[in-house]
Amino acid sequence: MAYTIAREPAASKKPKPPQQELGFGTHFTDHMFMMDYDAGIGWHDPRIVPYQPLVMDPAAKVFHYGQTVFEGMKAFRAKDGRIRLFRPDAHLSRMNRSNVRLSVPLLDEELVLEALRQLILADRDWVPGTEGTSLYIRPFIIATEPLLGVAPSRQYRLIVILSPVGAYYAEGIRPVRIHVEPDYVRAVAGGVGAAKTSGNYAAGLKAQEEASKLGYAQVMWLDGVHRKYIEEVGSMNVFFRLGETVVTPALSGSILAGVTRDSVIRLLRHWGIAVEERSLSIDELVEAHRAGTLLEAFGTGTAAVVSPIGELQWQGEPQVIGGGVTGALAKRLYDAVTGIQRGSESDPFGWMVDLI
Amino acid sequence: MAYTIAREPAASKKPKPPQQELGFGTHFTDHMFMMDYDAGIGWHDPRIVPYQPLVMDPAAKVFHYGQTVFEGMKAFRAKDGRIRLFRPDAHLSRMNRSNVRLSVPLLDEELVLEALRQLILADRDWVPGTEGTSLYIRPFIIATEPLLGVAPSRQYRLIVILSPVGAYYAEGIRPVRIHVEPDYVRAVAGGVGAAKTSGNYAAGLKAQEEASKLGYAQVMWLDGVHRKYIEEVGSMNVFFRLGETVVTPALSGSILAGVTRDSVIRLLRHWGIAVEERSLSIDELVEAHRAGTLLEAFGTGTAAVVSPIGELQWQGEPQVIGGGVTGALAKRLYDAVTGIQRGSESDPFGWMVDLI
Ligand SMILES: Cc1ncc(COP(=O)(O)O)c(C=O)c1O
Ligand SMILES: Cc1ncc(COP(=O)(O)O)c(C=O)c1O
Repeated sequence: MAYTIAREPAASKKPKPPQQELGFGTHFTDHMFMMDYDAGIGWHDPRIVPYQPLVMDPAAKVFHYGQTVFEGMKAFRAKDGRIRLFRPDAHLSRMNRSNVRLSVPLLDEELVLEALRQLILADRDWVPGTEGTSLYIRPFIIATEPLLGVAPSRQYRLIVILSPVGAYYAEGIRPVRIHVEPDYVRAVAGGVGAAKTSGNYAAGLKAQEEASKLGYAQVMWLDGVHRKYIEEVGSMNVFFRLGETVVTPALSGSILAGVTRDSVIRLLRHWGIAVEERSLSIDELVEAHRAGTLLEAFGTGTAAVVSPIGELQWQGEPQVIGGGVTGALAKRLYDAVTGIQRGSESDPFGWMVDLI
Repeated sequence: MAYTIAREPAASKKPKPPQQELGFGTHFTDHMFMMDYDAGIGWHDPRIVPYQPLVMDPAAKVFHYGQTVFEGMKAFRAKDGRIRLFRPDAHLSRMNRSNVRLSVPLLDEELVLEALRQLILADRDWVPGTEGTSLYIRPFIIATEPLLGVAPSRQYRLIVILSPVGAYYAEGIRPVRIHVEPDYVRAVAGGVGAAKTSGNYAAGLKAQEEASKLGYAQVMWLDGVHRKYIEEVGSMNVFFRLGETVVTPALSGSILAGVTRDSVIRLLRHWGIAVEERSLSIDELVEAHRAGTLLEAFGTGTAAVVSPIGELQWQGEPQVIGGGVTGALAKRLYDAVTGIQRGSESDPFGWMVDLI
């Protein structure tokens, strides 16, 4: 199917920041994509326009009732100059699953993929190429109807912005210290924890702020019902190497089905390593630590790919993992995923999608 | 303390809708209040400006991570023409409690009260006066920093918009049918359910939409841990008359501390009626219904004041309450609160605050 996407090129181009100073989500490219939804009409007017402020009624529902959905994925510049997306299909189908949970109208995934292609092509000069850099792609939907009644909006806007991002590990992959959160809860089964929606992140800010004051990089969330089963680490999924088996929390309804999580599980199985998706309590972890079988722990997500955990702080007791240095499996997974993304490794699962 | 609030009067005034056609949160007045926060500076530039669109960077954190807080309160025009606010102090102190939970910087409640006064005075012609109408006041704070990192924003805006609202019960106070929600969960202890923040409302949309398709006005939320203790009804607190005692769920951390809830509890105690704030299971309610001691049920909130429940639908079994008509106690509470608000009854608790 052919899609018609209108284009209004930016009159002037912004200066590009040096690739060593990119950071995460601080710089944005020259263009953005927008598309509107109105009840009775559907999604309409897909268009690429200059990056610009949104002009919104103060009564727009997004400000009051948080009806939003978003995604986060990346494009990479390979050594040969080609620009390629990592698993955009998985991200767009997750976006539609989030839409269902948030009562937001479904997107045509093909159309949005085509829009991403055209948008990135328009801003292709912004895709950085040095080791560890990428173009972060942030599609998001906001409820725009200017009405204070609590009910799904009858108007929405989909926006896609692009941000060139720097190497996550400027000084090489390095383990972080994590605070296991005893009081605050991020999400609970029956709620929206499995959807990528803004309220889940607002719910996590306070715990993160307090942990950071205590010197921890992030919190590890426990479930809201029993307050003992591991859920996620910050905004990442989490894996533990227990002896010869890798264990990650099952998708129980309150955690996000990470695309990196899925990629890591597939790679591990491809390598013949046993992976269990199941419930895993903090007590089991502490026990394994005591017994010497907790060999590695790491988070997974689009931003960091793999983030090794060097220490878990639980009830005042620091549990140092793998001597506080990056484990062999975490390193192997990091190298494998980033190798596929940068085109230096073959792509056995067909994850990379060429821009043109 | 004297506060300086800048003023830019609207160049032209909008036509006012007829008082019989106001609805809820669909019409907005000629002016709005704004005030900005920047890290290192604090809240600054309080100002009354013409009602106007917000111009916001698409990377503003509110769109992505939902860091927001809001309030909802009312002003009334008394028979003698005076304009008065209902418990603005209680609403503003709750707003600051929400701010703490969402890592949003605290507001000077005195300044905001003064801003409300001046804003409503500027738009005093918009305060409707017919029976059941009022001016709904919506203060809200949004995170405006244009940065995709998940962390509390370093920039915020407080906005106050005003909406003249119609009589909630155009045809007299009338009981509604409520679906007791078995699957979806609104909030859990340790989360943000006790704060007035946008994500809680997004989390409730799906259940509400499904209940409404089945012909119910709203859902009754059960707790996320045991899935049996009553929490709220839609976006209202809930009360049950069990024999001669009135029972309402205790403030356990996952429900909002409603100002109307507090007002109703005080009135009941003032009248010598026993009120218990405790946990109350759906099983206890069904048992009481069977035994004939569930005499009344009603929701409470700023919008409706008191909303009688004529039927609870639980596991396919409709529980008709009080013959499906408005109970005597619900009616007495509704008349008492609205009487105080309109100035036709004395105000024993000093709830009303004159505008000037
Ligand atoms: C809450 C949460 N969990 C997990 C993840 C990891 O998901 P993905 O690997 O798809 O980036 C994310 C997103 O990065 C997230 O926001
Ligand atoms: C979730 C929720 N519960 C209860 C209430 C009732 O609170 P109040 O009586 O202060 O309006 C509200 C607000 O109306 C609410 O949003």
